[in-house]
Amino acid sequence: MSGQGNRLVPAGGDRPVLAIVGATGAVGTIMRDVVSTRADIYGEIRLLASARSAGRMLEVRGEQVAVRELTAAAFDGVDIAMFDVPDEVSAAWAPIAAARGVTVIDKSGAFRMDPDVPLVVPEVNPDQAFNRPKGIISVPNCTTLSLIVVMGVLHRAYRLRQMFAASYQAASGAGQAGTEALYDQIEAVAGDRTLGRRPGNVRSAVPDSGPFPAPLVLNVVPWAGSLRPDGWSSEELKIRNETRKILGVNDIAITATCVRVPVVTGHSLALHAMFDSEVSRDDARKLLADAPGVVLVDEPETGEYPMPIDAVGTDPTWVGRIRQNPDDPRGLELFVCGDNLRKGAALNAAQIAELLVERGL
Amino acid sequence: MSGQGNRLVPAGGDRPVLAIVGATGAVGTIMRDVVSTRADIYGEIRLLASARSAGRMLEVRGEQVAVRELTAAAFDGVDIAMFDVPDEVSAAWAPIAAARGVTVIDKSGAFRMDPDVPLVVPEVNPDQAFNRPKGIISVPNCTTLSLIVVMGVLHRAYRLRQMFAASYQAASGAGQAGTEALYDQIEAVAGDRTLGRRPGNVRSAVPDSGPFPAPLVLNVVPWAGSLRPDGWSSEELKIRNETRKILGVNDIAITATCVRVPVVTGHSLALHAMFDSEVSRDDARKLLADAPGVVLVDEPETGEYPMPIDAVGTDPTWVGRIRQNPDDPRGLELFVCGDNLRKGAALNAAQIAELLVERGL
Repeated sequence: MSGQGNRLVPAGGDRPVLAIVGATGAVGTIMRDVVSTRADIYGEIRLLASARSAGRMLEVRGEQVAVRELTAAAFDGVDIAMFDVPDEVSAAWAPIAAARGVTVIDKSGAFRMDPDVPLVVPEVNPDQAFNRPKGIISVPNCTTLSLIVVMGVLHRAYRLRQMFAASYQAASGAGQAGTEALYDQIEAVAGDRTLGRRPGNVRSAVPDSGPFPAPLVLNVVPWAGSLRPDGWSSEELKIRNETRKILGVNDIAITATCVRVPVVTGHSLALHAMFDSEVSRDDARKLLADAPGVVLVDEPETGEYPMPIDAVGTDPTWVGRIRQNPDDPRGLELFVCGDNLRKGAALNAAQIAELLVERGL
Repeated sequence: MSGQGNRLVPAGGDRPVLAIVGATGAVGTIMRDVVSTRADIYGEIRLLASARSAGRMLEVRGEQVAVRELTAAAFDGVDIAMFDVPDEVSAAWAPIAAARGVTVIDKSGAFRMDPDVPLVVPEVNPDQAFNRPKGIISVPNCTTLSLIVVMGVLHRAYRLRQMFAASYQAASGAGQAGTEALYDQIEAVAGDRTLGRRPGNVRSAVPDSGPFPAPLVLNVVPWAGSLRPDGWSSEELKIRNETRKILGVNDIAITATCVRVPVVTGHSLALHAMFDSEVSRDDARKLLADAPGVVLVDEPETGEYPMPIDAVGTDPTWVGRIRQNPDDPRGLELFVCGDNLRKGAALNAAQIAELLVERGL
């Protein structure tokens, strides 16, 4: 998505000023890494965080930069701000930044379903970034982002009409506390070969579940997010609502069951998709092999399929295990995997910023 | 399914003689435990295994019993034989036992799709056990068994017409080698908090994947079984074919994606099911709460849902996360979990034996 930096940066040195709001968090850390390693299209990169972190030195583009306190004045001179903060902080501060002329790229859930805020994935609906009445662009939830680039490619060719998703979500989706809790739990069970063979003994060995509702080690927990009516979790409804909004079709039948698994980083999903047109396994594979932002890994005969231990730390969405539905030639079964902190958060925000700069904000 | 032992056992002491073929394996071990703890309806319990294990002493019903070599003569006087051996051993020996008048309950895949061999789950299709032209009854695959009791209840009430299953399968589904490999891998990664954050570093830390095609710890592996045409795994086709055969409906649209997860024992599945009739969340919950062999655990507000760390070592199928499909009131989303070594293998075989004895072989 970048690599055209030269064309984007006027000779006069007036490169856009970027602010990273929430620079100290899990995604903020990846955000600094992402903007430091992709084409360098920014002038100043300003790091903002709560008063507590002000003055702390953090590395970006190989230099130490002092964190500044998040205030309205801190946005003076900023062109683009990437927000990675809790929903309520975005809800309060994104409009303040936008009112000062900043284009806000917001990772939180605060504005995703706002009809006046586009929900943008550069590989899927880039044009939406240029229709932002509130000056705010939203970044989808990490689980949606783990499937949407692949589904966007297939939708464009075959028109998606129905999707069921079962997720295999990583601990880091619950933040740094989730990652540390999983490492703690692995240490707590290592060496005891009776655990996981009798009911409850993993619970006894792991007294602290961390941010999860139950131990994650040697377990799968069919829950992510908060409770919504009729037994749904917020994460399951995000997949439904955000996929519809990004693809721009409000009546696609979409349901999901979200499950947390003992993986550090890398969300996976088993997808069952039905389209308007017939879709052969070979055609789907060819299409996905050529798609930007997608890596096809689909050689089950040699044990090659998408897995979190390989996809973590990489930019694309990995797709494999592609099979045509034996009952209806308009259906596909597939398995996808993506880094929930990179494409699932920081990378998608950086790609939106690059798109804005490339086309002139 | 048992508990009516008294009625089944004639006063004359002519209790049926049971043979456990493959008594030394992972399921054989659970089989000895299951027959030792349920109603004691058997006369002699004979333990058979390969010549290599002959003479070894194993406990059953609190007594030490010498393992005998598997020979044709070893079936003399046996009424029921439970086979837990590889497919090719069952294929060779089950007909030999049946020819000697033994009723064979076979756990292998050798006969499951044979039209002259019933595939029996006592809670779902008990009558099929009494139509066995070859003297052989098959036990379904452990993954099918983790969903079929729940789906049997719902099918009887609403008629299943479509199902998509995504599995979360335990290491012990690959035998004792799978269980030991997972414990080994946990020990190999414990204490290193860089693992699972960069591509490939879990592979470096875990040089031996055991019986799995990739490390299972800190990972999910979207593969179980052997390769079948068009990209399917054998495990995925078993869910499709066995569910149809057990429910007795050959045109239910069923697809599955099978994924191995770092859990010791307890297969889970996320299920998306469409029925002929409308099915409300409350009605489905009431029906399942009252169903034999099923435990409803569906209180997401207090963190209660089916999980392998709780279901392991228990007999029933656990079901929860029940939600009505928001696009079609004939659909349900749910999550099930069951012990793949108990109901998934040994227990179902024992229940079939009890059914035979109860109704007079």
